[in-house]
Amino acid sequence: MNRFCRSILAPAFGPLRRRFLHMSVPSMANHKIAVVLSGAGVYDGSEVHEASATWVHLSRRDAQVSFYAPNVDQLHVIDHSSGQPMEGEKRNVLVESARISRGNIHPLTDLLAENHDAVVFPGGFGAAKNLSTFAVDGSKANVNDQVRRVITSFHTAKKPIGLCCISPVLAAKVIPGCTVTIGNDADTAKAVEEMGSKHSERSIHEACVDSENQIVTAAAFMYDAKVCDVFDSVGAMINALYKLLK
Amino acid sequence: MNRFCRSILAPAFGPLRRRFLHMSVPSMANHKIAVVLSGAGVYDGSEVHEASATWVHLSRRDAQVSFYAPNVDQLHVIDHSSGQPMEGEKRNVLVESARISRGNIHPLTDLLAENHDAVVFPGGFGAAKNLSTFAVDGSKANVNDQVRRVITSFHTAKKPIGLCCISPVLAAKVIPGCTVTIGNDADTAKAVEEMGSKHSERSIHEACVDSENQIVTAAAFMYDAKVCDVFDSVGAMINALYKLLK
Repeated sequence: MNRFCRSILAPAFGPLRRRFLHMSVPSMANHKIAVVLSGAGVYDGSEVHEASATWVHLSRRDAQVSFYAPNVDQLHVIDHSSGQPMEGEKRNVLVESARISRGNIHPLTDLLAENHDAVVFPGGFGAAKNLSTFAVDGSKANVNDQVRRVITSFHTAKKPIGLCCISPVLAAKVIPGCTVTIGNDADTAKAVEEMGSKHSERSIHEACVDSENQIVTAAAFMYDAKVCDVFDSVGAMINALYKLLK
Repeated sequence: MNRFCRSILAPAFGPLRRRFLHMSVPSMANHKIAVVLSGAGVYDGSEVHEASATWVHLSRRDAQVSFYAPNVDQLHVIDHSSGQPMEGEKRNVLVESARISRGNIHPLTDLLAENHDAVVFPGGFGAAKNLSTFAVDGSKANVNDQVRRVITSFHTAKKPIGLCCISPVLAAKVIPGCTVTIGNDADTAKAVEEMGSKHSERSIHEACVDSENQIVTAAAFMYDAKVCDVFDSVGAMINALYKLLK
């Protein structure tokens, strides 16, 4: 049996975890960026391609990336092949998020603004189902206590917050008066305004920058777009975020 | 309640599925590429970032992408936050793969070489656990019957086959005598040779092209690499694949 096999079968997955958990090796000068996930799959968690693009674009800048997720059950589990809920199935947001982060995951309670230069929220329905109740309650949504604490603490510390797809509604709710984009979806834009914030229409390739509040947003899959354009939309968000970094 | 909320709550997820299932709108001239997934998560399925990069690079070329997966149970389910198996948990490879493909998924039995110009296998342990028994049996691995049929039929039709990370072992087993790269891992390279094929060491940014067999391989996360370099490794595979397309 070769080493590849042995390492796969090792109970602790030690060698594999080391091989597969690789992160960029940062210099002290590299920025520390926290990424908040909400599961793994567009219908009940983080949108996989937005989350991956976030990591790729941050990796390109040699960022020190740490992933976080709330240690709570998902609102529900969607069979992504049918679009239907899987009755009786339960999954944990943190455990499922680790599928995207290759095991590099921390509970959201551990995310402190003082330890990071910026925080990024990729999209997907997880943001509207697990990080908030926007999917059910619209502009009357509650935001998860830890998500609210994280957004508030980065905002107070004047550290950039990046959000894409539907995630900008989190900032719109927690920091009323801020300006975000969710692309050009009229109903979601209306909800943003109802939450006391401002919506600014942007193309998929254009980030919306609220310099006063240090909030950067991009539409990503809020547009019915090709996945390469979503990749670029996330890239626009990360580029704009970096311009705000001190 | 705004339209976004209503559509989320709609039983059939109809509007959302339409919005979120977007694929590139191809012209008749665009190539039809099949992508074979093996779950959603590096330790028990498709490596998420290799699969996403595959889609991004194909999307950039306006490919018509269709996703396929075997409709079978995973070998096991790994808690990616701990690296440990989740005892008693069962998940279906096709259903989980749909998390990556945003619901665009077909059973592997439906994949016919005559309907596509090329086929691509991203990596992740799913290739060695769900598409074959390589994780357990090394060079003595069995390859899933449908995977074997697909690889054989594309090979017979002289249509390109792209594979990255650990997936090249599938070609090495099914088409003995072919040349592949799995990067520079000595033990996996030895297993390739034991299966009667040839291993050619390549850097992460360099695809290995076996023109005679129309097989293109790249190492991706077989190297302990930054995710942006894995993105580029997959890009090198797709670029080389396109050069082989008629």
